[in-house]
Amino acid sequence: MNYGMVLRVIGNLIVFEAFSMVTALAVAFYYKSSDIYAFVNTIMIMLIVGYPLSKFKVKNKDMKHKEAISIVTFGWFVVSAFGALPFMFTGALPSFTDAFFETVSGLTTTGASVLTDIESLPRGLMFWRSFLHWTGGMGILVLTLAIMPTIGVGAFQIFKAETPGPVADKLVPKMKDTARILYTVYLGITVIQVTLLMVGGMSFYDALVNTFGTVGTGGFSNYNASIGHYQNHYFYFVIGFFMVASGVNFSLYYELYRGRVKTIFSNIEFKVYIGIVIAATLLVFFNILGRYESIPATLNQAFFQVSSIITTTGYATTDFDLWPDFSKGILFLLMFVGASAGSTGGSIKVIRLIILFKLVKREVLKILHPRATIPVQINGKMLNTDVISGVTGFFFLYMLLFVGGTLLVSLENVGLVSAASAVAATLGNIGPGLDFVGPTKNYSLFSDATKWLLSFMMLFGRLELFTFFIVMTPSYWKKV
Amino acid sequence: MNYGMVLRVIGNLIVFEAFSMVTALAVAFYYKSSDIYAFVNTIMIMLIVGYPLSKFKVKNKDMKHKEAISIVTFGWFVVSAFGALPFMFTGALPSFTDAFFETVSGLTTTGASVLTDIESLPRGLMFWRSFLHWTGGMGILVLTLAIMPTIGVGAFQIFKAETPGPVADKLVPKMKDTARILYTVYLGITVIQVTLLMVGGMSFYDALVNTFGTVGTGGFSNYNASIGHYQNHYFYFVIGFFMVASGVNFSLYYELYRGRVKTIFSNIEFKVYIGIVIAATLLVFFNILGRYESIPATLNQAFFQVSSIITTTGYATTDFDLWPDFSKGILFLLMFVGASAGSTGGSIKVIRLIILFKLVKREVLKILHPRATIPVQINGKMLNTDVISGVTGFFFLYMLLFVGGTLLVSLENVGLVSAASAVAATLGNIGPGLDFVGPTKNYSLFSDATKWLLSFMMLFGRLELFTFFIVMTPSYWKKV
Repeated sequence: MNYGMVLRVIGNLIVFEAFSMVTALAVAFYYKSSDIYAFVNTIMIMLIVGYPLSKFKVKNKDMKHKEAISIVTFGWFVVSAFGALPFMFTGALPSFTDAFFETVSGLTTTGASVLTDIESLPRGLMFWRSFLHWTGGMGILVLTLAIMPTIGVGAFQIFKAETPGPVADKLVPKMKDTARILYTVYLGITVIQVTLLMVGGMSFYDALVNTFGTVGTGGFSNYNASIGHYQNHYFYFVIGFFMVASGVNFSLYYELYRGRVKTIFSNIEFKVYIGIVIAATLLVFFNILGRYESIPATLNQAFFQVSSIITTTGYATTDFDLWPDFSKGILFLLMFVGASAGSTGGSIKVIRLIILFKLVKREVLKILHPRATIPVQINGKMLNTDVISGVTGFFFLYMLLFVGGTLLVSLENVGLVSAASAVAATLGNIGPGLDFVGPTKNYSLFSDATKWLLSFMMLFGRLELFTFFIVMTPSYWKKV
Repeated sequence: MNYGMVLRVIGNLIVFEAFSMVTALAVAFYYKSSDIYAFVNTIMIMLIVGYPLSKFKVKNKDMKHKEAISIVTFGWFVVSAFGALPFMFTGALPSFTDAFFETVSGLTTTGASVLTDIESLPRGLMFWRSFLHWTGGMGILVLTLAIMPTIGVGAFQIFKAETPGPVADKLVPKMKDTARILYTVYLGITVIQVTLLMVGGMSFYDALVNTFGTVGTGGFSNYNASIGHYQNHYFYFVIGFFMVASGVNFSLYYELYRGRVKTIFSNIEFKVYIGIVIAATLLVFFNILGRYESIPATLNQAFFQVSSIITTTGYATTDFDLWPDFSKGILFLLMFVGASAGSTGGSIKVIRLIILFKLVKREVLKILHPRATIPVQINGKMLNTDVISGVTGFFFLYMLLFVGGTLLVSLENVGLVSAASAVAATLGNIGPGLDFVGPTKNYSLFSDATKWLLSFMMLFGRLELFTFFIVMTPSYWKKV
């Protein structure tokens, strides 16, 4: 392993984070809030640690598999640890466990909180908390669309397999282009949503915070009642719509920009994703009929909660934990669906589920026609066996982590639905779960051990499970 | 499709069932119980319908894929429908829905009941209910070890793949031999267990009924408190031990008979299965420490419940629904493990989970060594891709049925744990679940629609999922 190179890149990440924290410092200055020194101190610490690392002399500038895996795995951890400092320095979350949980939750765009009173946070820290979603979301896009395919991890592997021939080599020169397109789209969506929210009468500060949580599919809100605080169906619909939009494969926006609308509507993942949103919204709508003031309001509530969960955002406009079992069941199930590959959403993702469905269909056909060879196709192109085994391996590992995590959380004795939904909501980077961790509650009452477990669940999910496990294999640490 | 041949075999099944019902009639005669006429009438109906069918003239005696699939799928349904008649005729379960549920539950060796007072049943009917487990279990063994491999369904496919060369052809002449060995082992275990229970002071009738439920991994008891009725730790241990024994791959008993003990202990599925039983027993034991009169009693309770669930039997000696979440979580998880392939147990089965684990391990290694080809081995032999895709397809379909079923049952509004465990317990052929369908409760309070759904879940699980879906594909009904 080229440790020098790993340290250097992680140093760069810390310096980058220090710069990004300047925005939060600026907000603190503007509002003259009490958290100015917390940011100043953190930025100084980050520069003192990060700058020398970023200048680390390395003879060999090679970046291979192992280095990339290390950077992704440890980088996310280190950035979360530094990002947690303002929470501790302001006294908002004095314990490192809590501060780390909240920061990981922000950066992984989960949105699970251990804060019992969000509204009492100083303005700068509140901004920082949501800004973590936005930078985290951007990091994820680059990670999944540009870095992970080179390591051979993540749902984007599936699309890599579509283009014939060796692609991994081509990805490095393309990386900067890809990243620029992504940033443009990401920034564009952010600007449009902020504008639309302000048109509806939301303050610039609130509009920014809510947009960060939306486009990053994070879910941190600056009110204890989440988006429900506004009691405004225009806001519900705008945020609901932009949540769905943020769950779309970002490369499709590039197609849109190039005018290739047909390509978008023939994309199987896009079609199924939108189909699930519509179907789930209607099922929930009929199940909760009569619980809200009007038919459109009911439809909007159903749509908001469905889009919030499927995109793994986690905003709430109502306490869906009070809904009937069927609706809660659908939302729980959507926690395992997630949005599209190549979006900021987490969880299993629609494309993997489509492939798994096709595998089941193939098994049925194989029994009927034992001698036939039946290929599995996505968007008209055949999938190779590596992609298929990657998807099935991912699914089983996801279930294992879910089940293992649930057993450990069940030691808290808060009921199996609470335990299972807490794990599903962190592993899938959603945020709120059901019952004990429902949308009006938070994760503060769990023990430190459980908070650490769930912090790791968020990281596992965000890094598409495998990287963490690779780092844990002995052969990873062996010298070649 | 050779409809004539299908009808003929189903006719034979009905006649066979009529003969098996004579034992229940004999019991009814012996106890002079009120159900004699119910059996006489049912047997007559079965002979009137079944005998002419069994003599159906067929020109072409070919049995191919499609015919075998039809016989397995529809045969199980028809036999359940006729077996339900005594429940209706005696008035114990006047509705066909309930009677069918109870019979399917018996034949599929599930053990989920809609009877609210088991102890009030006439002696003949009570015997019949448990005898269904015994004949069902025997049917399952023949199905999984002899018939399903020829269709290309079921966990036993995995072992078929181990023997090199084309095996399917050899299976038909071997079928009779296999069946004879199985019957001998099955009968042997039955005799030993009945003897051991009677040695402990149990009546012959009770010993028979409890043994039927054990070796068939069924779980119907003749007391409302299940095995807990006896308040006898010797009975608990004997039944617990025989449940585990009935969850072993029956072909290993043949190895034991031939003195090849080494083969048994080098069998990966056997080792993992026993390992899970021990590990789960210890985890539950430590979690429930202090709840029973003594340490050995606590260990016995933990062992009994663990072996009851993992083998998909479903007997209970205590209300495990009152145990802490962690223990309930383990039992719930074991519902998805099931016993070994080639046993009377249901659910996913240990061998499939081993393969899925190995696939995850392979994925991790593949990311580290992208150019390496890593085979997946079971008992030292490489698995081919067909077996692997069969296992992954099965697992995903199992999850789909579980999730879909849970959503539908959640319309009953009995809580998500109740809904999920009801589906897990029927799809996995276990019997009792948690909460609303816990070990001291039953399935009688569900609506007819849910009872039908769960009846089908039992059949889906028992027939290893795929056959039912094949029958539902349009191409199955197309003329070639």
